[in-house]
Amino acid sequence: MTGNAIDYSTLFNKDLPAPAAQFEGHPKYNFIGGHSDPDSVPMEGFIEAATNVFSGDPKYMSMYSLDGPQGILPLRQFVVDKLRAHRGIEITTDEVLITSGSGQGIQIINDVLLEEGDTVIVEEFSFSGALNFLRKRNVNFIGVKIDDAGIRMDHLEEILEELRGKGIRAKYIYTIPTLQNPNGSVMSMERRHRMLELSAEYGVPIFEDECYADLVFEDKYEPAIKALDDTNRVLHIGSFSKNLGPAMRLGYMVAPWEIMSRFISAKADAGSGVMDQLIVGDYFTNHYDEHIQNLRAALRRKRDALGSALRESFGPNVEFEMPRGGMYLWMKFPNGVDVRDLVAPALKEGIAFNPGPDWSADPEAAANYIRLCFALPSEGDIWEGVEKMAEVFRSEGALP
Amino acid sequence: MTGNAIDYSTLFNKDLPAPAAQFEGHPKYNFIGGHSDPDSVPMEGFIEAATNVFSGDPKYMSMYSLDGPQGILPLRQFVVDKLRAHRGIEITTDEVLITSGSGQGIQIINDVLLEEGDTVIVEEFSFSGALNFLRKRNVNFIGVKIDDAGIRMDHLEEILEELRGKGIRAKYIYTIPTLQNPNGSVMSMERRHRMLELSAEYGVPIFEDECYADLVFEDKYEPAIKALDDTNRVLHIGSFSKNLGPAMRLGYMVAPWEIMSRFISAKADAGSGVMDQLIVGDYFTNHYDEHIQNLRAALRRKRDALGSALRESFGPNVEFEMPRGGMYLWMKFPNGVDVRDLVAPALKEGIAFNPGPDWSADPEAAANYIRLCFALPSEGDIWEGVEKMAEVFRSEGALP
Repeated sequence: MTGNAIDYSTLFNKDLPAPAAQFEGHPKYNFIGGHSDPDSVPMEGFIEAATNVFSGDPKYMSMYSLDGPQGILPLRQFVVDKLRAHRGIEITTDEVLITSGSGQGIQIINDVLLEEGDTVIVEEFSFSGALNFLRKRNVNFIGVKIDDAGIRMDHLEEILEELRGKGIRAKYIYTIPTLQNPNGSVMSMERRHRMLELSAEYGVPIFEDECYADLVFEDKYEPAIKALDDTNRVLHIGSFSKNLGPAMRLGYMVAPWEIMSRFISAKADAGSGVMDQLIVGDYFTNHYDEHIQNLRAALRRKRDALGSALRESFGPNVEFEMPRGGMYLWMKFPNGVDVRDLVAPALKEGIAFNPGPDWSADPEAAANYIRLCFALPSEGDIWEGVEKMAEVFRSEGALP
Repeated sequence: MTGNAIDYSTLFNKDLPAPAAQFEGHPKYNFIGGHSDPDSVPMEGFIEAATNVFSGDPKYMSMYSLDGPQGILPLRQFVVDKLRAHRGIEITTDEVLITSGSGQGIQIINDVLLEEGDTVIVEEFSFSGALNFLRKRNVNFIGVKIDDAGIRMDHLEEILEELRGKGIRAKYIYTIPTLQNPNGSVMSMERRHRMLELSAEYGVPIFEDECYADLVFEDKYEPAIKALDDTNRVLHIGSFSKNLGPAMRLGYMVAPWEIMSRFISAKADAGSGVMDQLIVGDYFTNHYDEHIQNLRAALRRKRDALGSALRESFGPNVEFEMPRGGMYLWMKFPNGVDVRDLVAPALKEGIAFNPGPDWSADPEAAANYIRLCFALPSEGDIWEGVEKMAEVFRSEGALP
């Protein structure tokens, strides 16, 4: 029956994204995405945890959700304990929903709150995935200015006031307050409190994404905004991709039951991976502090290497702040540079970085920014990669 | 600031499903869902596999997708080998996309092919999840009659002809040909060939869901429809939830690159769980045949127990076929019985079953059917549960 092939181009949904290209392997000097440090992955600890887990109840494996649709209890209990000890948040396991990565948490909040044409407020520079989700939903998003202490509250108030004048109530304010993605800032305490006041005054929830919050390189630092909220104004999400590794696709959402019950019914995926949940739950219950100290130390060394390499190779032509933690450095080129023109020439030399426009509510406003993830490459590759990157940028005329 | 709580009811999307109820634990006699047999979970084998995996490359854990967006290569290679050896399908790893359960595969096919108002053809009785996804998308679905040899091709032709008369081209025909869910049938060879002819004649793809196909209790049986297709008419999906356990949330899609490249770009979840993929890939590469023989034997014993228990407790008042494999039995009550009235009284006695209407394109057409999953309960609980179920049904007037 050859010859009767179906012409799928006549069947595809009209709004499809471009088809994927064949995968050609990863670049040698890989500064993109949110990959983690391979040498900090606790492989021995995972063997121990897996051995514990698979010596336990096989019903965890044979059933969709032995502990109910919110996820496995030992992992939810770990989230409760960690948030209490490290983020100042007091909740019970009923207020935790385990998700398949924090990206799913963002999608669920959007599913529950957003309709086409709604308005939300985002940080002017923000997580590309979150911005893309909003674009796909045809939602209006307004970028609020940020600096090295997080959202500028005067600008937030201005936006909220202007929206009120138009009779518009934003559905949420999306913030990554603790190690902002991409700019690495940590929101000051004063602004955290002010943000809660503005949330109350305008009736707009705060959507707090703390997926990097465990990676501040200090023992004591700012608590979550959720920790300062005595009512229900904050919807809080987090991730295991950054404090452990993305291979497990695990994150969590925290909300009071009135909203949690909506999150659960919106999560139509038959549950998140239980095998991962059990292994991560067992490992972190026994080794969280030890692991986080190791990981922070490794990331600190890599951050320092990147900062030094950039100063050496790029000199005074670029501006950046050294982040207090995390895995990203956000770097500004002189006005007039368009980093999108540099992506292909860099990739030809095996160097990959994230162009600023992908991380910006208004892409043009970040035409001269790039984001560098320093977690994956070795310190040697960071030094080599930055040197080669500077060469490419120079030969492309982006640097003197 | 107590008192300034946000009233979320004024912010929710208007089309939300009902909020979830608090989880109250699982019923003692649990015949619902697609849970698997706990005693067949290879816990020792998982320890061995996890030890192998975590003795390997830590980059698998620290990166989103070391082997690219289609999933980990060892698992894709296993899918290729299994489909060649057991389902007659010849493909390469480029034609396989690992998904988070086969439910995600259904959603991706829907994302790529469907727009609101489109028409698809489904089996009159079908997977509740697939039907619900279509309802949410406001897609028209037409139920085609099935019997103990699968879809009735005369009825399929009639539907396709009628649609053609109205100028409508259905986007796909969704079928579970090998151990149909819920009726347990295996489509005959003659009908498989005929279905491909009809697909070619009307230009409508076949969406073949083989998530139960490994569980036929025989060594040799009908190949996949995809195996008989020499062009591109079949989009094929499968699952690891049924042949291993749902805790891993892993499935796969098979399609030629022209369509695969669309599936990949539509899969916006940053990848499926790599830890699971590696453990399942390692375990199945070494132990697939041995595991499947064990699992089939266990399911066969439970099917036989359920069949005997039903004959003993329900007598001639119900009709059912003994399925050739799998985990479900589809049972018909006399006309006039509405099984929806029996759900609550049964649950009060700790007995849970799936009411037919949830598994039916036209809910009313299955008002007197129930689906029983025999994989999870022990043989003792199957006997006890069926006896108690018959008592409840009798006291509710559904049986004489």
